[in-house]
Amino acid sequence: MRDLCYLPGMNFASDNTAGVHPQILAAIARANEGAATSYGSDHLTKRVEKKFCEIFERDVAVYFVATGTAANGLALATMAPSYGAVLCHEESHIHMDECAAPEFFMGGGKLVPIKSANGKLTPDAVKQTLAGYARWRPHGAPARVLSISQASECGTLYAVGEIGALATLAHENGMKVHVDGARFASAVAASGKSPAALAWKAGVDVLSFGGSKNGCLAAEAVVFFDPEDAADFDYRRKRAGHLWSKSRFLAAQFDAYFEGGLWLQLAAHANAAATRLAEGLKKAGVEIGYSTDINAVFPVFERALAERLLATGASFYPWATLGDWTGGNLYRLLCSWATRTEEIDEFIAHAQASRQ
Amino acid sequence: MRDLCYLPGMNFASDNTAGVHPQILAAIARANEGAATSYGSDHLTKRVEKKFCEIFERDVAVYFVATGTAANGLALATMAPSYGAVLCHEESHIHMDECAAPEFFMGGGKLVPIKSANGKLTPDAVKQTLAGYARWRPHGAPARVLSISQASECGTLYAVGEIGALATLAHENGMKVHVDGARFASAVAASGKSPAALAWKAGVDVLSFGGSKNGCLAAEAVVFFDPEDAADFDYRRKRAGHLWSKSRFLAAQFDAYFEGGLWLQLAAHANAAATRLAEGLKKAGVEIGYSTDINAVFPVFERALAERLLATGASFYPWATLGDWTGGNLYRLLCSWATRTEEIDEFIAHAQASRQ
Amino acid sequence: MRDLCYLPGMNFASDNTAGVHPQILAAIARANEGAATSYGSDHLTKRVEKKFCEIFERDVAVYFVATGTAANGLALATMAPSYGAVLCHEESHIHMDECAAPEFFMGGGKLVPIKSANGKLTPDAVKQTLAGYARWRPHGAPARVLSISQASECGTLYAVGEIGALATLAHENGMKVHVDGARFASAVAASGKSPAALAWKAGVDVLSFGGSKNGCLAAEAVVFFDPEDAADFDYRRKRAGHLWSKSRFLAAQFDAYFEGGLWLQLAAHANAAATRLAEGLKKAGVEIGYSTDINAVFPVFERALAERLLATGASFYPWATLGDWTGGNLYRLLCSWATRTEEIDEFIAHAQASRQ
Amino acid sequence: MRDLCYLPGMNFASDNTAGVHPQILAAIARANEGAATSYGSDHLTKRVEKKFCEIFERDVAVYFVATGTAANGLALATMAPSYGAVLCHEESHIHMDECAAPEFFMGGGKLVPIKSANGKLTPDAVKQTLAGYARWRPHGAPARVLSISQASECGTLYAVGEIGALATLAHENGMKVHVDGARFASAVAASGKSPAALAWKAGVDVLSFGGSKNGCLAAEAVVFFDPEDAADFDYRRKRAGHLWSKSRFLAAQFDAYFEGGLWLQLAAHANAAATRLAEGLKKAGVEIGYSTDINAVFPVFERALAERLLATGASFYPWATLGDWTGGNLYRLLCSWATRTEEIDEFIAHAQASRQ
Repeated sequence: MRDLCYLPGMNFASDNTAGVHPQILAAIARANEGAATSYGSDHLTKRVEKKFCEIFERDVAVYFVATGTAANGLALATMAPSYGAVLCHEESHIHMDECAAPEFFMGGGKLVPIKSANGKLTPDAVKQTLAGYARWRPHGAPARVLSISQASECGTLYAVGEIGALATLAHENGMKVHVDGARFASAVAASGKSPAALAWKAGVDVLSFGGSKNGCLAAEAVVFFDPEDAADFDYRRKRAGHLWSKSRFLAAQFDAYFEGGLWLQLAAHANAAATRLAEGLKKAGVEIGYSTDINAVFPVFERALAERLLATGASFYPWATLGDWTGGNLYRLLCSWATRTEEIDEFIAHAQASRQ
Repeated sequence: MRDLCYLPGMNFASDNTAGVHPQILAAIARANEGAATSYGSDHLTKRVEKKFCEIFERDVAVYFVATGTAANGLALATMAPSYGAVLCHEESHIHMDECAAPEFFMGGGKLVPIKSANGKLTPDAVKQTLAGYARWRPHGAPARVLSISQASECGTLYAVGEIGALATLAHENGMKVHVDGARFASAVAASGKSPAALAWKAGVDVLSFGGSKNGCLAAEAVVFFDPEDAADFDYRRKRAGHLWSKSRFLAAQFDAYFEGGLWLQLAAHANAAATRLAEGLKKAGVEIGYSTDINAVFPVFERALAERLLATGASFYPWATLGDWTGGNLYRLLCSWATRTEEIDEFIAHAQASRQ
Repeated sequence: MRDLCYLPGMNFASDNTAGVHPQILAAIARANEGAATSYGSDHLTKRVEKKFCEIFERDVAVYFVATGTAANGLALATMAPSYGAVLCHEESHIHMDECAAPEFFMGGGKLVPIKSANGKLTPDAVKQTLAGYARWRPHGAPARVLSISQASECGTLYAVGEIGALATLAHENGMKVHVDGARFASAVAASGKSPAALAWKAGVDVLSFGGSKNGCLAAEAVVFFDPEDAADFDYRRKRAGHLWSKSRFLAAQFDAYFEGGLWLQLAAHANAAATRLAEGLKKAGVEIGYSTDINAVFPVFERALAERLLATGASFYPWATLGDWTGGNLYRLLCSWATRTEEIDEFIAHAQASRQ
Repeated sequence: MRDLCYLPGMNFASDNTAGVHPQILAAIARANEGAATSYGSDHLTKRVEKKFCEIFERDVAVYFVATGTAANGLALATMAPSYGAVLCHEESHIHMDECAAPEFFMGGGKLVPIKSANGKLTPDAVKQTLAGYARWRPHGAPARVLSISQASECGTLYAVGEIGALATLAHENGMKVHVDGARFASAVAASGKSPAALAWKAGVDVLSFGGSKNGCLAAEAVVFFDPEDAADFDYRRKRAGHLWSKSRFLAAQFDAYFEGGLWLQLAAHANAAATRLAEGLKKAGVEIGYSTDINAVFPVFERALAERLLATGASFYPWATLGDWTGGNLYRLLCSWATRTEEIDEFIAHAQASRQ
């Protein structure tokens, strides 16, 4: 595990507290040399759009925005009519953490949250919801999108076959498949699968592809695997205020992000950091709640222990949950592209000391 | 149990398949004598507004619309900001049966469905949701309304104390209390409590007061117990297309509905019919799922039995549920102001015969 | 001119201050005999839908609602995407009198008001707007609907050829054509043209067909001349609270409205009343602003004269206008299916006396 | 006029084709040193918020977003209810160039465009609109905001007294005053007035304060001069996807923008460039349409001349207009913080040569 950047503190509050990777910052500066046409018509944007096609091994329609909430909201609004419903996990970011953004972007659509273990939907859970929900036209808002997070909010991964089974079920029931990929890079790096294998080859229709949590300044992409699905996305992005005039500076971030596989190196670093953290905590006798598949660790801390750890200067949050977790107090610790070995080991040492 | 009207068949599909009570139809005809100013400025509307104040024993602001979905949607949009969340039961009409109308009227608000037994929310269930949901401003859509149904979609009643406990919890947490009273008349008739006791005296802020399911043609009212809460309701009603030009014909329905306590007589009739139906089915060996508090009966039928009963010409539907029911196949049979003793007894006889 | 109903006063405030025609009221009562399935699945609804096909001489998809604002809003929301623009006259009802209902139903669409004489759009006025408005994708909300009122808010009629020219222009520019036909009956009666000739044969795609201003209680229809355009209307109507449970009572109104050509008789009566009123006022020396094509008269009153006339007990309103009228104070007087000869003549006599 | 940056070509297409000023880019890099808390809670954001208070000489509530469309839409949605109307110039950016964003952010509000000379509203034009528009509650969407652009889309400036007169009229009629200040820096630099004098001292309630067109990468601010007006802005920004996780990088831009008065230096440069361009064109015999108050020049080119100039490699656009301009073909040429003297002079020379 190579240390990419030196940050003070044991900072596990979020992977978005890290800054911008130097190569991405350099790309922004490079893009600044000279004038360029605006609103996405520049050469750099066109070039990066092609990179997305290469990475996903097919023609895609791709649009850049600055935040994950915008990517998800615009994607869902394009995929479902205003009166449609989106089936999602009850702990999903779109339901819990976006202040009703999907409902806003959709123009009053409905989110139908589903309870299921480990932050992951299962075909059975979806089937049960479909059996009970909205069976009488036009009284129930029709389910038109199934949205999953890869990786999930519980730091777990869907296997390719799991995505495929959900996608098949969704398509059979008139739903398109959306993936909130705020941590898609982590998922690719951790799974060893290709981006295509985790996406359209498994039946995914639209992907919110995240960059901001993995070294970008503010860069997310909405990827339509069938470009025809994107027909009106440009209008929707503009009217939501998400079309940058100097759009080359979004493209530049992705340009550097993909260059030489940087995105997967950064994700692998964050994943490895989390693994080291989880292993260390386990050795210190701390129970880990969810499987540490990516860069998130969910330890169970007694309240007193959590307070002692926070008192050492470490930063992390309790994990508020509506969900299936019925064990002790769950906390979430996130590692990032910039997390250093030293701060992990220091934290583990504190945990070990506190428990003795 | 007096038979108010003779209808063919064993019609338990819905209480909205019955027609209009003759006295209400007569009131519409009476209101037609002569011209009247439009858009709610007529004398009849003013008079009926005063009747609502009398019935609820206080000054209220009241607005008439034609459907329950409009009443609920407009009420919630007035009570919560567009980015707010409404906590509700996962089987509530506003969540399951209004095609995302609350989200539409609110301009993209969020419904947070809560699992709880018997179609009724409990303080514990609400507390658990509040503990897990939307704790970080501004990431979670803030909970601004707690909406319950009285009577509930499972045909059960909230006791006055139960409403009061929920209202206290809601107000302590920055939420207003909305009651979907599509069957509020049934609740008043069944509980023996006054309308005021079931509403503002128990802490309810806004009530969707139903007429259409209980003998009206198309008449619902939104009642604000603090008139100041209604400040902009007239604009919202107009822009949603729910301000009738000939609004006296909405007022006329309520005029007759209240005259001589007709509304409670009709509701009592429907409740008694349901009780007779439930008792008869029980005697025939049929299990009843939820408590028969009002005009709805939820028997458990084996599929073969249900099919035989439908083959006799009776009409009723299976009860699709996301909810807590884990027993056998649940069906819902509704009685109305127009249900006749004969059709109840005929149905019970078929059930008895079919099970032998 | 046959007097259909006796009303007190010289009531020219609006054609919606009149009541319900007795035959329509009788039809509502008839529809009340027995139970019926709800939400538009009843036989009467199906039968009246067929009547619409006959009247318009082709297969149409038709949906009933209670108000004109609902009909217009739902029609426009079905015709245009949420980010689309509707071109309309600057004095149109949808822009001036519906409290932003189209914007609400569309989910945030835009109305682009156009200045043009006599309440009627012209191809030149539309072309000029198209030349200046929204030329750069995706910065301008794309114009997707051209909406006209037949008859117009200024009481004027579009000739068949005028509609045709506008429709051709609209279709060439990617717009569908909507007609706000709150007074479509007046237009048919006054023009002597068939409903089909004034609608789809001239290029109209969707019509808001009014009943409430012409003798119905509360009944409007949205007519899609290409049924495929209506694909999701049932969801939109439901979520806006405009699907009546006892929908047969909307159908019953149209049933009687069409029976024996009642709708055209009522409209002809109102039109003739307006003609008599306009002619009488002219003879009394009053200038008439707009052409009296239907049941609306727009006299120019000096303020003192208007006040004297109102003091006699007559009711009418000044005509607020953003528009092309630059003459004296314009007022609007509406006649209805129930206007009596006597009240017209009495009003004219007052006008004559007041001016001497 | 100091040349700040060397760009190829005679680039007058837009002030947003220029890049980022080096000092602003450097500030972004500086902000990248270390981790920081996210979502606007960082120290840099707090510090820059205070700078806004200093610049405007009072306590303000200020929120950062990335685009002007977001700033305007969020401001208007906070200032007006969903059923409210915004009065604006018919050529305003919010009406013509934001793809119905205000209607979207407001949840279906209405824009009422007003015709008026030189891109500027006048009290008379506003009064005339108020007299004709929306007089009957609740039929007309109530006017709740008056929005003007300073500088205007026609490159003209409102004098302090002109803003004051409009603001007084607005406040007397229940409207708040919004200023679209995408080019507010240009207005301050050109007028010699203080930011406060052009804003709250003249009666402005909320300002969209632009940075992106004047050297920032993507940075706009919504400034509430009465912080209480901003009560729920944080929720609205989040749900619209405009809350950056790494929000320090928005703050950093403004930090450098204000440092040493850079913002006014850049604006003065752009203004001076436009003055040089306009003067040169006039000398070459070209008529200038609107007054060159800021960094925009609106020459009248015969079509052949425009084509010849474009053929030299210069970039600029025709000015599509709905408005009051009735002269020849109007074009818009924008200068920026990065426009060089050489390219201005070269363009003038081409114009001179082409006209001979």
